[in-house]
Amino acid sequence: MHQLRAPGRAARAMAEWAKQLAGTKGVVLDISGVLYDGGGEGGGVPIPGSIQAVEKIKASGLKLRFCTNETQATRGKFVEKLQRLGFNISVNEVTAPAPAACRVLRERNLRPHLLVHDDLVPEFDQLDKANPNCVVIGDAADNFSYKNLNEAFRVLIGLENPILISLGRGRYYKETDGLKLDVGVYMKALEYACDIQAEVVGKPAKMFFQSALAEMEVEPQQAIMIGDDIVNDVGGAQQCGMRALQVRTGKYRPCDEQHPEVKADGYVNNLAEAVDIIVKQLHK
Amino acid sequence: MHQLRAPGRAARAMAEWAKQLAGTKGVVLDISGVLYDGGGEGGGVPIPGSIQAVEKIKASGLKLRFCTNETQATRGKFVEKLQRLGFNISVNEVTAPAPAACRVLRERNLRPHLLVHDDLVPEFDQLDKANPNCVVIGDAADNFSYKNLNEAFRVLIGLENPILISLGRGRYYKETDGLKLDVGVYMKALEYACDIQAEVVGKPAKMFFQSALAEMEVEPQQAIMIGDDIVNDVGGAQQCGMRALQVRTGKYRPCDEQHPEVKADGYVNNLAEAVDIIVKQLHK
Repeated sequence: MHQLRAPGRAARAMAEWAKQLAGTKGVVLDISGVLYDGGGEGGGVPIPGSIQAVEKIKASGLKLRFCTNETQATRGKFVEKLQRLGFNISVNEVTAPAPAACRVLRERNLRPHLLVHDDLVPEFDQLDKANPNCVVIGDAADNFSYKNLNEAFRVLIGLENPILISLGRGRYYKETDGLKLDVGVYMKALEYACDIQAEVVGKPAKMFFQSALAEMEVEPQQAIMIGDDIVNDVGGAQQCGMRALQVRTGKYRPCDEQHPEVKADGYVNNLAEAVDIIVKQLHK
Repeated sequence: MHQLRAPGRAARAMAEWAKQLAGTKGVVLDISGVLYDGGGEGGGVPIPGSIQAVEKIKASGLKLRFCTNETQATRGKFVEKLQRLGFNISVNEVTAPAPAACRVLRERNLRPHLLVHDDLVPEFDQLDKANPNCVVIGDAADNFSYKNLNEAFRVLIGLENPILISLGRGRYYKETDGLKLDVGVYMKALEYACDIQAEVVGKPAKMFFQSALAEMEVEPQQAIMIGDDIVNDVGGAQQCGMRALQVRTGKYRPCDEQHPEVKADGYVNNLAEAVDIIVKQLHK
C-alpha cells in the first residue's frame, strides 16, 4: 500500500528539491548505469531517454561533465564506445582517473613514476617524469610484474615523503577469460610495503570531483551530480559541496533511499526525469 | 653505577628463573642472532660459544629444534650454510615456514595451490595438490606475476571458505641488486582482494611454535625457547605456553628488557650462558 503512494511522496520531495535549483550552472553525470547499462558482450545499451537528456543539457546552456571511474580502457576508447551507442560526447568532456591524476600531479609539481597499463601511458605524455617524486598506479594488468612492483616500491621507499596516487581502489573485475585483480589490490600491497596510505583518484575521492568542477569552471554549490551509486556518486559529490541526485537505474537498489549515511538531495526515476526538472527550473 | 651492579641482579634473576627448570625436556633455538650473526657478503659468523652450546644440548639428552623464519632459501640450502659455519645441524631438526605449513595442511586435509619460489616447491611434493581448497603464498619473487596472482586469487574467490596461508608477513628485504618486496606484501594484496585474513605461518604465530613442539613430541610447558627477538621469539613462544629466554646477541637491544608487553622468563648474555644454566639444572 505504501508503495502505491510512493510516487506521490517522491514527486513532492522532488518538487521541494527543485526549488533549490537556483544558481545551478553545471551538471556532472556518471556514465555507467546513468547513460547506459553495461555488461554483456555487446558493450551495453543506452538507458531510455538518456541520449536525448544529454542533448537537452547541452542545449540548455548548462555546463556538462561526464565523470567515470573507468580505468580499464583509455578515455578515448571509452568515449568511442559511447559515441557508437549514440551519445553526443567527446573525450574532453570526460573526467576519468588518469587525466584527473595528471591535473593533481601538475598542481603539486609531482613527477610520476608510472605503474599503469601501456594503453594509459599516453595520458601522461605532457608530464615531466625524470627523477620521480611520486608513484601513480593504475590497472596495469600484465604490467603488474614482480620487477615493476619492485621498481615502484623502490621509488616510494627512497622518498622522504612517499606519495602513492592510485587510479581507483577496485578489488577485481570480470573479463571474458576470468576474474582479474584490479588496481586497489596492488595499491594495498604498496601501502603495506611502505607503511603509507595511497591517495585515491576516482569517485568518491574529493579531489576527483574537484577536478571535474575545475574543468567546468563551476563552484561546488553551483553543480549537480547525477549518479546511480549512493556512496561513490551521491555521497562523494555531497562531501565536495555539490548537490546530488540518485537515479533509479543502473546499480540503484530501493534500500539506497534509506542508506544509513548518505541521503541524496533528490531521487529520480532516470536521467531523463532529472534533466526535465533541472532544465524546467532553469527557465523559471 | 646501576649498570655496574646489573650483572649481580641479572645473575640473581637468572638463578631464580633456573629453579623453575624442572621438567624441561626440550629446547627451541632461534638461528639468526642466536647461532650466528648474519649480514655481510660472507654469509655470517658464528656467535662465540654457540657451536659448542649446540653440541652441549645434544649431549645432554634434551630434545632440540631450530626454529627460523627464513623463507628466502630452502631449508636444505640454509642448513648447508650453517654446517659450513661449523654447526652440528641437520635439515630435519629445523622448523621453517614451508615444512610447518605442510604439517598444517596435512592436519587440516588442505590441498594447496602454491604461489611460492620454484626452489620451495619440492617441500610440498608429498601433498595432494589436485582440486585445491586453499592457497599457500611464500616469497615467490619473480613468480609474483599478474598471471600467477590472478590464478591464486581465482582459487580463493572460488572457495566457500577461502583459506590463505602465508609463509611470513615480511614487507621487504635487501638483495645485492636492491630492495625486493617480501611475501607479506602479496599476502596483503590477496587479503584485500578477497576480504579475508591470511593465516601466517612463522614466528610469532602460535601454530608455528606448535609445529616445532609437535616435531619434538614435547609439551609447551616442557620446552624453552631461546631467541634474540623479544616479540617474535620470546612473546610468541610464551603465548604458546612455553618459557622463553632472550639472549643479548643478534638484534637484542637493552630496551627489550623493559618491553611494555613482553617479559622474558630470563635474560642471558648469549646462547652459551643459557645452555650452561639449563644443562647444570638438569643434572641437579
